[in-house]
Amino acid sequence: MRLLVTLCFALLFSTAASAREFAIDHLEPASWWVGMKHDRVELMVHGDGIAMLTPRLAHPGISIAGVEKTGNPNYLFVTLAIAPDAKPGGLEIEFLDGAKVALRHPWRLDAREAGSAQRHGFDATEAIYLLTPDRFANAEPGNDSVAGMVERANRADANGRHGGDIAGIRRHLDYIAGMGFTQLWPTPLLENNQPGYSYHGYAITDLYRTDPRFGSNEDYRALSREARRHGLGLIMDVVLNHVGDHHWWMADPPAPDWFNRTAGYAGTNNRRTTVQDPHAAPEDKALFVEGWFVKSMPDLNQRNPHLATYLIQNTLWWIEYAGLTGIREDTFGYADTAFLSAWGRAVMDEYPDFAMVGEEWSANPAIVAHWQRGKVNPDGHVPYMPSMMDFPLQIALRTALAQPEGWDSGWIGLYEMLANDFLYPDPGRLVVFAENHDSARMLAHLGGDVALWKLAMAYVATVRGTPQFYYGSEVLLQGPRERNDGELRADMPGGWGGDTGNAFTGKGLSPAQRDAQQYVRALFNWRKRSPAVQHGKLQHFAPADGVYVYFRYDGQDTVMVALNRNPGAVSLALDRFADFIPAGSRGHDALTGKPIVLDAALPLAGKSATIIEIAPREDRAHREVQARRSASGE
Amino acid sequence: MRLLVTLCFALLFSTAASAREFAIDHLEPASWWVGMKHDRVELMVHGDGIAMLTPRLAHPGISIAGVEKTGNPNYLFVTLAIAPDAKPGGLEIEFLDGAKVALRHPWRLDAREAGSAQRHGFDATEAIYLLTPDRFANAEPGNDSVAGMVERANRADANGRHGGDIAGIRRHLDYIAGMGFTQLWPTPLLENNQPGYSYHGYAITDLYRTDPRFGSNEDYRALSREARRHGLGLIMDVVLNHVGDHHWWMADPPAPDWFNRTAGYAGTNNRRTTVQDPHAAPEDKALFVEGWFVKSMPDLNQRNPHLATYLIQNTLWWIEYAGLTGIREDTFGYADTAFLSAWGRAVMDEYPDFAMVGEEWSANPAIVAHWQRGKVNPDGHVPYMPSMMDFPLQIALRTALAQPEGWDSGWIGLYEMLANDFLYPDPGRLVVFAENHDSARMLAHLGGDVALWKLAMAYVATVRGTPQFYYGSEVLLQGPRERNDGELRADMPGGWGGDTGNAFTGKGLSPAQRDAQQYVRALFNWRKRSPAVQHGKLQHFAPADGVYVYFRYDGQDTVMVALNRNPGAVSLALDRFADFIPAGSRGHDALTGKPIVLDAALPLAGKSATIIEIAPREDRAHREVQARRSASGE
Repeated sequence: MRLLVTLCFALLFSTAASAREFAIDHLEPASWWVGMKHDRVELMVHGDGIAMLTPRLAHPGISIAGVEKTGNPNYLFVTLAIAPDAKPGGLEIEFLDGAKVALRHPWRLDAREAGSAQRHGFDATEAIYLLTPDRFANAEPGNDSVAGMVERANRADANGRHGGDIAGIRRHLDYIAGMGFTQLWPTPLLENNQPGYSYHGYAITDLYRTDPRFGSNEDYRALSREARRHGLGLIMDVVLNHVGDHHWWMADPPAPDWFNRTAGYAGTNNRRTTVQDPHAAPEDKALFVEGWFVKSMPDLNQRNPHLATYLIQNTLWWIEYAGLTGIREDTFGYADTAFLSAWGRAVMDEYPDFAMVGEEWSANPAIVAHWQRGKVNPDGHVPYMPSMMDFPLQIALRTALAQPEGWDSGWIGLYEMLANDFLYPDPGRLVVFAENHDSARMLAHLGGDVALWKLAMAYVATVRGTPQFYYGSEVLLQGPRERNDGELRADMPGGWGGDTGNAFTGKGLSPAQRDAQQYVRALFNWRKRSPAVQHGKLQHFAPADGVYVYFRYDGQDTVMVALNRNPGAVSLALDRFADFIPAGSRGHDALTGKPIVLDAALPLAGKSATIIEIAPREDRAHREVQARRSASGE
Repeated sequence: MRLLVTLCFALLFSTAASAREFAIDHLEPASWWVGMKHDRVELMVHGDGIAMLTPRLAHPGISIAGVEKTGNPNYLFVTLAIAPDAKPGGLEIEFLDGAKVALRHPWRLDAREAGSAQRHGFDATEAIYLLTPDRFANAEPGNDSVAGMVERANRADANGRHGGDIAGIRRHLDYIAGMGFTQLWPTPLLENNQPGYSYHGYAITDLYRTDPRFGSNEDYRALSREARRHGLGLIMDVVLNHVGDHHWWMADPPAPDWFNRTAGYAGTNNRRTTVQDPHAAPEDKALFVEGWFVKSMPDLNQRNPHLATYLIQNTLWWIEYAGLTGIREDTFGYADTAFLSAWGRAVMDEYPDFAMVGEEWSANPAIVAHWQRGKVNPDGHVPYMPSMMDFPLQIALRTALAQPEGWDSGWIGLYEMLANDFLYPDPGRLVVFAENHDSARMLAHLGGDVALWKLAMAYVATVRGTPQFYYGSEVLLQGPRERNDGELRADMPGGWGGDTGNAFTGKGLSPAQRDAQQYVRALFNWRKRSPAVQHGKLQHFAPADGVYVYFRYDGQDTVMVALNRNPGAVSLALDRFADFIPAGSRGHDALTGKPIVLDAALPLAGKSATIIEIAPREDRAHREVQARRSASGE
């Protein structure tokens, strides 16, 4: 009897098992493209007990090249091999429980847009407008709070969500393009379903989903297309180092080593020198890379090969899906060094002319240079990043303008930092900036001195590299002098219905705001037309008496930049610059077009940037002058 | 009649000319050696009208390979080719006026000392004692003032000559060696026949002559020999960039381009970044290199090939003549870059195992690294210096100890500077120092805090590289807090008859002075016996809570250095260092020999350096401990 009961239970159980209901919670990526170099796509399939199923598909040109499991029964890693002649279209992947199809899941293979592989990433011809989407413009108040997303909008909270969205950006593409910018870098737009501080976007909870409070993936793609029609490229802010602690992986990690330092929280020590330091204790380097950025952002262990592949594919997917012109990679050096190399190589192999810029927040150019493509590193690391954020120059610029001028303070620090360009394989591809979403705004840093702030803007727009501007500074958003993220990422005036001032229409702006905005507009629109500033060489002269002079030149055009930080006007003797300003040269102010006499001395207004386009020596005007001079016997 | 008179005059004149008296004012070098790689010696011959004479000599194995003239009739450049089998000995060089011997001048060819070419320059096994000869010890008051030397001794003048001499150094070699030092670097000893500030020696007026107020060339050579018997090498302080404005060349320059910027004085702009800066204005770089260091030091134009050869030969001559173990080269980057390469190559070709250290006074390791042998530079410069002074580390050390401790101030600056070692091809060959003759003394910089000063000394003695110590600090010479050369280069107590305190005998020193001196003695004598500190690897741990810990280790020995800058005692948890301090490790204080328990925590006294030699894991003591532990069931 007892045996019979046991037998019945066993039978019942086995029947129950074979009749078990399966469901797929995640299958990523949900699509791929025909004709990618990356033609073996590893799908991450997540669902309760899914590892016991066997995938199958039948589609011309696609086959299952391999299936891998981790210790977690809820994950399957299925590698699809996609032939160059595979047929685009929808298909179904079947998951078999023995001989029985337990599940079917849709999947897509798409055709690539023409020229996708050849896309040209941003370079120094461009100017980047960085914005914090939650704080830029709220065009769809209906999505400010969304069911299923825990944090609701609360504009009264400096650290809360304010409701800005993709529709808001789309509405103001005209404005951004009109200001002279050609690239858009919104901080991350992917889902951050975190209970707090979700507005900034760096705690991603779904790497394949646009946060619904910003819009949908389709909206993201539409933003990119519409931006392109406005002459604006779209740069995605990618985070490889960590996710938000409400990412679905946290509830059910694909593998025990998916995250670093999960047994007992350990924060990163932020000691970035350990990466290259030949003397660093391995423990310190490990803690830098493996420690969590903050407690709400678990640190990804990219040494897990499935995770590495997941992240690489995720980047490729978004580039292809959204038609990106560039990637900005967050907290660059915090990720595993070997992975960074593999990730960069995969992206640049797929898009050889693409652009990626990494955030290595260090004042030391030798540390930043470590990551730029072409750098030969003693530690053997082979970098693939075409560009890095030029933090050393940013810090030097901020220090220079806040210091009194002296033999070894003020401009000289900026001059000497730029002199370190020999450390970079390609300094002209760095991204230069005065401020971003993580630093007190330049205007605040300078104690509200708009004239000095203009000097900084002029520098960023005319030095080598791709300039990056931070939204709102054009209407003198200032914020606190000491870094305070929520406050410095203030709402763009006019982005919300009922705002008293409106940056987009100009309505309600103060004369100072209008003047600043016009200055930025003139500066970056002029920059769009100046090949010498975009790609010319740079030659600078050791600063003297509070004036820093440099030239941009390309054999055709010459631009002179004279930055006078003295409160009062000065007369700049020009004999030192004779190579660039031969006798009889004429020029005009780059921003106003006003003719400028380039005689023995050039008057410079107090705290001002003078940007002069110098007419080529042999142009007509010059010949006329020469003719007149010889006629009059001068 | 008129014709006859003219004829007579012509005859008379020609007779007078042929009977003209010639004299040689300088013929340099006055000797050379058989068997040098540099076997073509260019003699500079200087004398009124000498260029019209023709040199001749007859000596086995020596021939005149060429004669060159400049526009100046008072100079002849005579190249002697010296065969490997040339016969050492004296000879005469004849100078012919037509067929007539107008002049005879003695010259010597010497045999080299055995092993001369193979001499081993200083390296990290050594410790250097830097001293200012005029301020160290006056053993021969008779040479304090010397006929023909314009500046007379005046000990009451901080900027005057105080009378120190070579005999004074020789008298105290015992002392220096006893302090644990193995190399001697006196600032320049060559003739400085300048009207003022001649004591420091950097305004040389005769590159082949020891200043008679210091002694003779023979005394210089005797110093070297005697030092060697004390286990002390001799490093010469060489100045390639400039001479004193009372150098005899100034009265009669060998060529119009012998000096830079003679037409109108131009001082250097000191903008050393221009050398590597890809954006530097050529004018700025030229002014850096060609401008005079100061008005009393005319800038040599080493692009003149005769001058280049002169300087190279001068260096080789002194190495060979005085049996040097090293060169310290002054104001390194200020000389012509290509010449620096040629000079370095010539010396290192001649003495492949020699040591040379350059002074590039920059806080930027990328600038210093430019000059170290093995560095591949983007500007194509090929450097030959085995060593450079580690100014970046010096500046970081001084900044660290003067700053309050914090997350990004204090020790961290020093830690992060050392992390830049990846920039150097051979960081272990840098010369490390806390102070020299150009910086306020460390004790003054630290406001007289002897405990902090000891920390600095311990760091210099235990970090990678060759430590350099500045005379007098061991008896707490302090001087002004802001740089003041004359005062910081104060007289060594006991160097002058009648001094109240005596560093050499210890008489009259305060207890604090005696304690400091004993500390330095113990430190550097211990260092002489520690291979791990001399040549071991270094691993450091990110400073925390005011304590900076690093290890030196060579697979055999392990030395732990724990620098506690907190005013109070702290307990240092050792678990972080488990790789170096396995459970059951024993150690002893490197300076006192006292056993130290390396348990869970190590007590560190306030403001102290704890240097521990950790017994090898497998040594007897350790085995005994292990045996005891297992016996007691621990």
